[in-house]
Amino acid sequence: MTTGTLYMLPVTLGTDNIHQALPQEVIQLAQGLETFIVENEKSARRFLGLVKPAKPVRELTLLTLNEHTTDAELPALLAPLLAGQDVGLMSEAGCPGIADPGARLAAMAHRKNIRVAPLVGPSSILLSLMGSGLNGQRFAFLGYLPSDKQARIQRIKDIERQSRQQQETQIFIETPYRNQHLLEDMLTHCAAETRLCIARNISLPTELIVSKSIKDWKKSELPELHKQPTVFLLLA
Amino acid sequence: MTTGTLYMLPVTLGTDNIHQALPQEVIQLAQGLETFIVENEKSARRFLGLVKPAKPVRELTLLTLNEHTTDAELPALLAPLLAGQDVGLMSEAGCPGIADPGARLAAMAHRKNIRVAPLVGPSSILLSLMGSGLNGQRFAFLGYLPSDKQARIQRIKDIERQSRQQQETQIFIETPYRNQHLLEDMLTHCAAETRLCIARNISLPTELIVSKSIKDWKKSELPELHKQPTVFLLLA
Repeated sequence: MTTGTLYMLPVTLGTDNIHQALPQEVIQLAQGLETFIVENEKSARRFLGLVKPAKPVRELTLLTLNEHTTDAELPALLAPLLAGQDVGLMSEAGCPGIADPGARLAAMAHRKNIRVAPLVGPSSILLSLMGSGLNGQRFAFLGYLPSDKQARIQRIKDIERQSRQQQETQIFIETPYRNQHLLEDMLTHCAAETRLCIARNISLPTELIVSKSIKDWKKSELPELHKQPTVFLLLA
Repeated sequence: MTTGTLYMLPVTLGTDNIHQALPQEVIQLAQGLETFIVENEKSARRFLGLVKPAKPVRELTLLTLNEHTTDAELPALLAPLLAGQDVGLMSEAGCPGIADPGARLAAMAHRKNIRVAPLVGPSSILLSLMGSGLNGQRFAFLGYLPSDKQARIQRIKDIERQSRQQQETQIFIETPYRNQHLLEDMLTHCAAETRLCIARNISLPTELIVSKSIKDWKKSELPELHKQPTVFLLLA
């Protein structure tokens, strides 16, 4: 039997506007799918309501893959694909397989010779890099920084050193209620000429993407970042 | 006077199918622009023909920004923005500001307080990572590897070491006519358990995204990569 395709289906970044976020053919493809593997069922149903699938949303099959999913549970998620069905994999926001648990299933799909097909959509990491004006020829995404203040300061210094040595843009995030602390630590501990891009609420009406040197950030009014999804990009 | 917005406008990755690559609202926005900064004028005119702008393509203003553009030439490219016009920045393929000269202009726009607005579209780097099943929580894009064989082998070993130490997916490219050499060097010099994803002709009908261990790649028939755009992703 021919196996199905695992479509890596991006979702909107907090907006309701799927026509700003997804190509028409991606929306059409999603409309035809009947089985989805989702990070959060509630937000996935809301997103699928916007997509307007061929079948009513309540009749779609939604399986969950999140940080609590064990390796032992992964084979059950691949069962529909092995039975020949196409499946859409969605993360909570943005592109599945990037900074989410989706890559674990894609890895297992490759081992079973199931086709994995990425679809175009919004990624706050990529969009913020495009908008930053920092080096896009060489960059690294590091995920979350340590929550402990001393460990975070040390990590910031390491990141700055790596960026200077390699001329590499370093991209990282923080849980939104700690954004302001991270920003303060960078302003205190980074070199005056280091460039910092703050990319807040990407693709929302309140989107802000501003790149300045640490020296110039210190002279500016700082943007409100508390509890707002923000990507930080640094180039020393 | 209010300055214009610099739109970072992605273009298709070799296909003619803009409805697979760009959201409807991105296409509509591009239709309304009259000034574009482009990496290659010929391919940009071809792409704009598909977009069907409000003004005939021959009446649009196209300015060039490529690897030969000097810093002294950049201010002239910002002049329309400072005069209040919105401008679209396009690279040869994919997302501007990523692995192209576009970031230089975005950086200068930030210094002039010109708004830089990234738009959703296809990136072979991001799509290949989504499809790879390799670590998407931590990754680095390294650009091109050295063309000299000995230097390239050393670099592959460094990349593998960095990936193992940080559990970081390492993403890199090669000029397409050297793809086969790069692949052979990786098969010879990487550890048996290192995972390698080959992502060829992303978004074309001949798209191939396959992840295997080096050991399993050695047992497989190798894909034809000669002169075909390919992204390599490695996780040791």
